Amino acid sequence: MTLGKIICTGLGPGDPGLISVRSDRLIRAARHVAYFRKAGRAGQARCIVEGMLAPDVTEYPMEYPVTTELPFDSPQYKQVLAVFYDDWATRLAQLAATEDVIVLCEGDPLFYGSFMHLQTRLQGRVEVEVIPGINGMTGCWNATGIPITWGDDVLAVLVGTLSEDALLQHMRSADALVVMKTGCNLPKIRRALERAGRLADAWLVERGTMSGQRVTRLIETDVIDCPYFATVLVHGQGRRPKVGT
Amino acid sequence: MTLGKIICTGLGPGDPGLISVRSDRLIRAARHVAYFRKAGRAGQARCIVEGMLAPDVTEYPMEYPVTTELPFDSPQYKQVLAVFYDDWATRLAQLAATEDVIVLCEGDPLFYGSFMHLQTRLQGRVEVEVIPGINGMTGCWNATGIPITWGDDVLAVLVGTLSEDALLQHMRSADALVVMKTGCNLPKIRRALERAGRLADAWLVERGTMSGQRVTRLIETDVIDCPYFATVLVHGQGRRPKVGT
Repeated sequence: MTLGKIICTGLGPGDPGLISVRSDRLIRAARHVAYFRKAGRAGQARCIVEGMLAPDVTEYPMEYPVTTELPFDSPQYKQVLAVFYDDWATRLAQLAATEDVIVLCEGDPLFYGSFMHLQTRLQGRVEVEVIPGINGMTGCWNATGIPITWGDDVLAVLVGTLSEDALLQHMRSADALVVMKTGCNLPKIRRALERAGRLADAWLVERGTMSGQRVTRLIETDVIDCPYFATVLVHGQGRRPKVGT
Repeated sequence: MTLGKIICTGLGPGDPGLISVRSDRLIRAARHVAYFRKAGRAGQARCIVEGMLAPDVTEYPMEYPVTTELPFDSPQYKQVLAVFYDDWATRLAQLAATEDVIVLCEGDPLFYGSFMHLQTRLQGRVEVEVIPGINGMTGCWNATGIPITWGDDVLAVLVGTLSEDALLQHMRSADALVVMKTGCNLPKIRRALERAGRLADAWLVERGTMSGQRVTRLIETDVIDCPYFATVLVHGQGRRPKVGT
């Protein structure tokens, strides 16, 4: 279709040493690098690769037109974001007509990632390759040093934007829990964990694998300060070995 | 405590290019490398690092004394495995008294991994470091090329050893599904998916990211042949973008 292709590299949870060998090599050799960021911010993906880019690289920061200013289910929000993704898909496809373009994505691109909105729009227009990464939740349970699942544990991955009752239902039925997109949803998540009888076993991991990492028991945390980049975890207990038995 | 330490490196889903930069460096420089395997087999972890080990490396294959010969909930099974893990924990701790030991683990070590049984036993005896890896399920959904979760999708991770009714309950309530440890449980998993009305959307990924990778729709697959290393996936559909709207 084109001479170049679009390669989306999953960067993993934040520590640059956790980028895959293949992505690391592509990022260091890249001539065109694109990444999402909030306007006015450096961008999490760009921060992870700091010091890795070649001197002659051209960077394409893709700045979200809105983030939390509009309700995510409003028609305006959907419309503004759709135009944003349409425009960038076209621009990246034009670049890839002649050269490879690397798109940087935190975590794993196919797990709650923004790249999926470009991937959908690029289908049939340009060759797209996605390289998996260690997702953020994996970095977070590694930060606690405790296995998230054993034996036949069921793991439920939830997002903090769900209703309290929806959270509660899954918190009651799964063994291990991950709750992402916490932020200002943390008081609601905490209430649901308490109703499910699981608050005492919950951990809050902020900036997992990154500088400033903080791992605390949720019950001992002041959730009023609404951390931005945090994940709640409850580890499974299933078929855990008993030493010496 | 000791001069050396035990470093468990998560190898990712199978493709050696998906090993993290840090693990790759440690594995290539290692003098002592241990890994689990079934007796008489090369071992999946060892296969992933083929060609990467230094010429003067010493290898320690940790061969499971039993795998499927005894029921996993029988006292004999638990006893035999406990002795096996006790012995290897002691042996690795002795080695780490003077030198670093690298333990190879497929996927992410803290996600349904065997290393956790050693980690528990090594606490307080020797320094242990765990380096996360891309878990197998991430490799599998990347093999399909389709995002596993969008927006506020709930993901349930299940194991095929659960009862059909337990599988059914989670298959009904979650948006996206991953079922691991399939093998001979595949007919049961398929029945549960059918009862949950989700069989038409289920994929079977065999040997994800490895040579011989096969991605098929479960409904079109002859599940009688009981693949050994396979994962069942149902992708979430939540807040999926509609192009051009």
